[in-house]
Amino acid sequence: MTMNFPTEGHIRAAHERISPFINYTPVLTSATIDRMFRASIFFKCENFQKVGAFKARGATNAVRSLDQDSINKGVATHSSGNHAQALAWAAALAGANAYIVMPSNSSPVKVAAVKGYGGRITFCEPTLSSRETTLLKVIEETGAVEIHPYNDTRIIAGQATSALELIEEIQSLDIIIVPVGGGGLLSGTALSAFYFAPGTKVIAAEPAQADDAYRSFVSGTFVPSVNPRTIADGLRTSLGSLTFPVIQKHVSDIVTVSEKSIVKAMKFIWERMKIIVETSSAVPLAAIMENKINIEGKRVGLILSGGNVDLNNLPW
Amino acid sequence: MTMNFPTEGHIRAAHERISPFINYTPVLTSATIDRMFRASIFFKCENFQKVGAFKARGATNAVRSLDQDSINKGVATHSSGNHAQALAWAAALAGANAYIVMPSNSSPVKVAAVKGYGGRITFCEPTLSSRETTLLKVIEETGAVEIHPYNDTRIIAGQATSALELIEEIQSLDIIIVPVGGGGLLSGTALSAFYFAPGTKVIAAEPAQADDAYRSFVSGTFVPSVNPRTIADGLRTSLGSLTFPVIQKHVSDIVTVSEKSIVKAMKFIWERMKIIVETSSAVPLAAIMENKINIEGKRVGLILSGGNVDLNNLPW
Repeated sequence: MTMNFPTEGHIRAAHERISPFINYTPVLTSATIDRMFRASIFFKCENFQKVGAFKARGATNAVRSLDQDSINKGVATHSSGNHAQALAWAAALAGANAYIVMPSNSSPVKVAAVKGYGGRITFCEPTLSSRETTLLKVIEETGAVEIHPYNDTRIIAGQATSALELIEEIQSLDIIIVPVGGGGLLSGTALSAFYFAPGTKVIAAEPAQADDAYRSFVSGTFVPSVNPRTIADGLRTSLGSLTFPVIQKHVSDIVTVSEKSIVKAMKFIWERMKIIVETSSAVPLAAIMENKINIEGKRVGLILSGGNVDLNNLPW
Repeated sequence: MTMNFPTEGHIRAAHERISPFINYTPVLTSATIDRMFRASIFFKCENFQKVGAFKARGATNAVRSLDQDSINKGVATHSSGNHAQALAWAAALAGANAYIVMPSNSSPVKVAAVKGYGGRITFCEPTLSSRETTLLKVIEETGAVEIHPYNDTRIIAGQATSALELIEEIQSLDIIIVPVGGGGLLSGTALSAFYFAPGTKVIAAEPAQADDAYRSFVSGTFVPSVNPRTIADGLRTSLGSLTFPVIQKHVSDIVTVSEKSIVKAMKFIWERMKIIVETSSAVPLAAIMENKINIEGKRVGLILSGGNVDLNNLPW
């Protein structure tokens, strides 16, 4: 059953819908890195995206897909990460309220960012059940439309546009590597490759200490993320009922990496490429450094998912 | 007397000479920053240049201007900074030895980088006189050609190519702002503006705690840099006999900024633009933040001179 998957048309429409609002992000290369790994690596820089992460794509597509009545009521989500900022930003730009439920232990930097984009924050206990019940209460009171961070076809179609741009700009990629958390970026990327570059394999990289997607993929049965202890805070979530089937069907492989490799790869990108990427973004290069993916002689696309980092609290 | 100034032809020739080896660096913009300062700011990203700094331009031009006999003998300089790396890199690429005199207290990161590019290091005492006598001795022994970091027309013409690219890519700039240390980048930029964009003013920004260029410019008499105590380690040097006259003739203004502003501007660029720039690169934006340069409503080019930073030792 592929009937619920976003279609080629959905992804094209999403790209057209969001293009006036998001950044067409650059693709960077490094001669040194290519020499080191004997491959041609094309880094799609979503760290340069609006709000500093690819999440701006999905959020914009979701918000801009709403009818005026829904816009008037607003949008809502629970998130302590980039989706919170992205939704607040996309909603403000569309003239809608964004009601964001955030756990009380969210980082002050992220709370300030959501407020800075005009998001209306409701704090809750730092548990999934408190997040969900608080969100339901907010929705009951406001009539706002829930925009889930990844288990939503509009979000998946939006995140798919990063790979679409990459595929259109860089011909004949052998592989695209992306990080996987809830699977929004991964499923979108896999669909874009399937539709627009059928010869290109999509491989996901995941922290070994949050390897629920890997275990789900290998076993063929959904495995939830329980007590993930990874520094890659964007990758701690479980797959969704919409993202997992796409991943099963269209992803070639999922590999896992150590925490040490993530930090090493992150610092390596900062030093060599002079760009700021967050921990989650470093996971695909960590997989290359760990020799988990054979890229020798290949043309490799790698999506750097975001660049939101607390500069006062770096992991090295 | 402008007879010693690099000509339009020198700069064009330098660009043609170095283009196969250096990066054509991107120009980045930020909607947020433009809104904040009510201007259009175009950041020319020399932090993405080979060896992480504009210095690769001048060094490549100087090395590629040598005859085969000189190439066989090698090149030499004393430097603890980006010029050392740039010269080592450019020489290696041209098949020449690079003899680099470095003070014994140079940062291990920079020593390792010079070694990494194949430079042959001779350590000396951390004083100017020891640097100069050690260099003379090295040159005597090797017959190598000295390549001064900035007081050399080939270097100035090479550094001028960054502004040349910026001017050709971004039309109708009102101002270009660059940092000033020894004046290689500044004099090159001023000449490129004079030749290729006569309507564009060039303004320099300098740390108040290393304000020798400012005082030289204002007084009309060369003032050496004595005990500069700035975090912007690339800007501690004195102007040269070739750079100062160009600056007197073709630079509109030099402004100074506090140490606090430099760190604030540097962190701001990291956070907002997600790129890594070194302290010296942040000095022009610090001048804008301190309202030392009126840019409201204007089109402003800003050269981000480099991105070589010790990530284990950040200034905040």
